[in-house]
Amino acid sequence: MVPHLVTALKGPLLDLEKKILDATPAIERWFRMEWQEHTPPFYCSVDLRNAGFKLAPVDTNLFPGGFNNLLPEMLPLAVQAAMAAIEKICPDAKNLLMIPEQHTRNTFYLQNIARLSAIMRHAGLNVRLGSLSPDITEPTTVELPDGQQLVIEPLERTSRRLGLKNFDPCSILLNNDLSTGIPPILENLHEQYLLPPLHAGWAVRRKSQHFACYDDVAKKFAKLIDVDQWMLNPYFTKCSGVDFQHSTGEECLADSVDALFKKINKKYREYGIEEKPFIVIKADAGTYGMGVMTVRDAAEVKHLPRKERNRMSVAQEGLPVSDVLLQEGVHTFEKINEAVAEPVVYMIDRYVVGGFYRVHTGRAVDENLNAPGMHFVPLAFEHTALPDVHAKPGAAPPNRFYMYGVVARLALLAASLELERTDPDQEVY
Amino acid sequence: MVPHLVTALKGPLLDLEKKILDATPAIERWFRMEWQEHTPPFYCSVDLRNAGFKLAPVDTNLFPGGFNNLLPEMLPLAVQAAMAAIEKICPDAKNLLMIPEQHTRNTFYLQNIARLSAIMRHAGLNVRLGSLSPDITEPTTVELPDGQQLVIEPLERTSRRLGLKNFDPCSILLNNDLSTGIPPILENLHEQYLLPPLHAGWAVRRKSQHFACYDDVAKKFAKLIDVDQWMLNPYFTKCSGVDFQHSTGEECLADSVDALFKKINKKYREYGIEEKPFIVIKADAGTYGMGVMTVRDAAEVKHLPRKERNRMSVAQEGLPVSDVLLQEGVHTFEKINEAVAEPVVYMIDRYVVGGFYRVHTGRAVDENLNAPGMHFVPLAFEHTALPDVHAKPGAAPPNRFYMYGVVARLALLAASLELERTDPDQEVY
Repeated sequence: MVPHLVTALKGPLLDLEKKILDATPAIERWFRMEWQEHTPPFYCSVDLRNAGFKLAPVDTNLFPGGFNNLLPEMLPLAVQAAMAAIEKICPDAKNLLMIPEQHTRNTFYLQNIARLSAIMRHAGLNVRLGSLSPDITEPTTVELPDGQQLVIEPLERTSRRLGLKNFDPCSILLNNDLSTGIPPILENLHEQYLLPPLHAGWAVRRKSQHFACYDDVAKKFAKLIDVDQWMLNPYFTKCSGVDFQHSTGEECLADSVDALFKKINKKYREYGIEEKPFIVIKADAGTYGMGVMTVRDAAEVKHLPRKERNRMSVAQEGLPVSDVLLQEGVHTFEKINEAVAEPVVYMIDRYVVGGFYRVHTGRAVDENLNAPGMHFVPLAFEHTALPDVHAKPGAAPPNRFYMYGVVARLALLAASLELERTDPDQEVY
Repeated sequence: MVPHLVTALKGPLLDLEKKILDATPAIERWFRMEWQEHTPPFYCSVDLRNAGFKLAPVDTNLFPGGFNNLLPEMLPLAVQAAMAAIEKICPDAKNLLMIPEQHTRNTFYLQNIARLSAIMRHAGLNVRLGSLSPDITEPTTVELPDGQQLVIEPLERTSRRLGLKNFDPCSILLNNDLSTGIPPILENLHEQYLLPPLHAGWAVRRKSQHFACYDDVAKKFAKLIDVDQWMLNPYFTKCSGVDFQHSTGEECLADSVDALFKKINKKYREYGIEEKPFIVIKADAGTYGMGVMTVRDAAEVKHLPRKERNRMSVAQEGLPVSDVLLQEGVHTFEKINEAVAEPVVYMIDRYVVGGFYRVHTGRAVDENLNAPGMHFVPLAFEHTALPDVHAKPGAAPPNRFYMYGVVARLALLAASLELERTDPDQEVY
């Protein structure tokens, strides 16, 4: 299970790795101070792309699935982080209600839920599962491939609180990204902690908002360690009112793509990068890699084939797309057994608790890997040990994983700012 | 490096393991609530003895060496725990002064210091080392076997603060157990955190005080999970004014040994235990396994051979022994390659961060293993994964390690009570 990784770290990123390793105490202190001001979301996973000359987060998920892809031996880190989180939120917490996604037949996803339940149980909580699905009208047992069982129960709502039959939780952990909107049953809860809050769901979240916050974070961090923030931060812009079906908003798209390519080309020239730049167009809301398109030339968006238009016009859960994010593409130059790979970093509270590689044998270095056919390779232990400042730059897996953990935490911090700025009750801050 | 362990868990301990696993959420919540009331020492290692029918801490070290014996891959747990600890103590901490033991030529010990420095650096602190030794008059570089270097510097004291040249630390981490007394240079510091506090040193600490606190903790915990507290708690008593050289206090010793054996025998009969009971006599202050003796019969203490008298009359650093602790001996029935082994559990703040086995090929199951000739075998990953409630009792290494971690944390909690009760400034509580 130890991934054999081929990474072509090039000049600028070797320099970044060295700067990050040398500045470790300053970086960790900086995070510590930032977390005094900002509250991290309960958990988070971040997809990174490592282009050798550039390293950046491309997706920040506030309802991470995939905990089952972490190595079991690394779970004590997750438990410890969950303990620290609970202690801050609700020190006398006893019961936790977890609300999973509704597609209960996906056993991979259910293994994620089983794993999360185990983590929360070991952090000192009685965990039970409640479903938003109207099909769950009584406790329903689901068998998992490894012989474990999950019991999913119908939710019970009183005027003030949400729970299950004979189960009144102090906290509610959402593992459901609310793409279809905020269910009324979750609204107006009193004295119950909803983790993460409702506005972390895709009913409210926008990628453009997240990356605007990431801009602020990356700028500050780049100054701290004295690098060009472009090393960590892809350019992006946003187009509103796009209708792919009816070719509305193509003008804005083409102009924006054009302007973005100009900025990217300038940077590529500055650093002598000979790769072909590309732009990724994504729905501004939603996840799961739906509604994502790679563009290598501005002309492409003006002559989209019908199939591509159809594909881009709906995001997750069949919701129509009208706002899109245009983001500088970051190649992924990591490979496992010749297949293109990108690291995914998992965090609970402010702590990195593990990660894995998302691998796709059928995709190219400038394509989205979050697509059917992908598989996962856990990061081996050797990757998660303490960095070795004395190792040759680019040669030590723990050093690279430390750098990944730092950049993933920048995205985590951006998510914290994002949740502050989009909080409907922000007057309470 | 994976230890091949032979453990003979017997009836009562299998039952204890099962009760501990079943009660995990309640146990973790209980610890969480206790840590709301009591502050754990910064770090701690606990020696456990597993007799198959009984599991108990026998030594609680508040200045743990041996961090170098933990597997490197487990260190992220230590870093995460250190981060959580620092955040509570001094969130804007930048500089940490570490004060090691004075025997600077012991490379094993220095590797421990190097490891601790790395942990604290990755937790976001600039770490430098200051020595209490008068021989260190200028920065002195020490080479370690693995090629690392440590620089040990002379301390610089102002009227209010302690530091090094051009280095004003927010916190001072003691890895020196102060057996020879409290150095004046460490006294009356202002606005600097001394971790752990001075009264955690052996100049003030007494084992009898610790085990009195452990009594309270074990009683409460045993009630929580509904077991006989004797499963976790060896009987003990104390004799004062003992002078082994001049045979003073032998009466008290013999009487106490007699009374202890009566209590132990009663319990052995109750649980049908056929092993031969024994009592361990130790100096009430001091560590390193010095001044420790195994007694299998009350008559033994009345006719101690001259050699044994000499050995028992001095503890660490040649200090005379006058108060002794008499403790019910706990056999260790764990073996690695036929050699007797006992687990040592490491904690930072309230978190278990790893462990190893202390192994001695020349000692018996009822003898002290902390003696020249011992070696260390790290606990493998498989031991530190999450417990598996569904595994056959006694069969799953993670389950055993979880039980060890729980009992070690009981000793940690006892140390917290002990530090509260012995705090010279306790009016501030």
